[in-house]
Amino acid sequence: MELYSGYISRLIGELSVLPGIGNKSAQRLAFHIINMPKDKVENLANAMTEARNNIKYCKECFTLTDNEICPVCKDETRDHRQIMVVENTRDMTAYEKTGKYKGVYHVLHGAINPSLGVGPNDIRLPELLRRLQSVDATEVIIATNSSIEGETTAMYISKLIKSSGIRVTRIASGVPVGGELENIDEVTLSRALDARVEL
Amino acid sequence: MELYSGYISRLIGELSVLPGIGNKSAQRLAFHIINMPKDKVENLANAMTEARNNIKYCKECFTLTDNEICPVCKDETRDHRQIMVVENTRDMTAYEKTGKYKGVYHVLHGAINPSLGVGPNDIRLPELLRRLQSVDATEVIIATNSSIEGETTAMYISKLIKSSGIRVTRIASGVPVGGELENIDEVTLSRALDARVEL
Repeated sequence: MELYSGYISRLIGELSVLPGIGNKSAQRLAFHIINMPKDKVENLANAMTEARNNIKYCKECFTLTDNEICPVCKDETRDHRQIMVVENTRDMTAYEKTGKYKGVYHVLHGAINPSLGVGPNDIRLPELLRRLQSVDATEVIIATNSSIEGETTAMYISKLIKSSGIRVTRIASGVPVGGELENIDEVTLSRALDARVEL
Repeated sequence: MELYSGYISRLIGELSVLPGIGNKSAQRLAFHIINMPKDKVENLANAMTEARNNIKYCKECFTLTDNEICPVCKDETRDHRQIMVVENTRDMTAYEKTGKYKGVYHVLHGAINPSLGVGPNDIRLPELLRRLQSVDATEVIIATNSSIEGETTAMYISKLIKSSGIRVTRIASGVPVGGELENIDEVTLSRALDARVEL
């Protein structure tokens, strides 16, 4: 005998394939959804299908957006010759939240990862090179993650671009603000030491 | 300027009202959904609306089910005179998974919680009393949670029913199997001591 009704089992199954949602969370979510007002459930379901069906890649920076060109690329007050390379749209948003960056972005949608078979042509790297040929870029800031894949990607891009004479920089790595030294890994600590600045 | 496109913002907003899903998880889920194949997203969305629109309460035990009567209540091999009272369908499923219980259930859909204004008539307690009048029950096993609300509800039900001469029992509380004593709270430990059995 099925422990749950068919509809509930199916919903639990669909929910539990989402990232970070195990079987227990899927059960809790499913029962929450069943107890929500009907129109709220419809809103949630529509938000999913509509986002999936209407999202486009920005033709310039390849971030996910509603339009042909994203708001950042459309903004003429920003410096379109300074390009920050990020792994995904969330990383771009993280930098936008700082409000400090006035250049534009290029979203790779991934990082080079040989062990998963992700090569330079599987991310939006050819698009970056084409873009650099058409735009007279002054600086490419590489803001990929500080993981093995992110570092590999950063090194790879830097080698490709440097020969063309464009300035290539990498965001600093070190101890996060507010971080307690005892909780920080050795690699970060030694990098922070190497990159120490005069006071 | 909106940090995300309208569709993504809306989806993040809808997801972040779900229990246990904060803003960060909602962002991760939203981007995962946008990158899923279209038909998978439709399946997920349909599973939600269909579950919400088709789920009924069993006319006998009030668990959530696809039909008028749930599979447990329909099963004639089970003892319909032994009724286990649980707070919700998940708790019923937890006991069904043990495979040890051969009676039927009554699902309260909540517990008495005066601080939230949940009284005896706000849960399926009147339905339990009516049911006990029509069924010649031999035993009511109270399996509400071992929380303050669960215990309050158990006490309340026990007082109501005992006068009618039906046997009322409560599931045992004690140290969970595999639990390490040092990690278990004092109340549980003292209950386990009170309820000690001869070896």
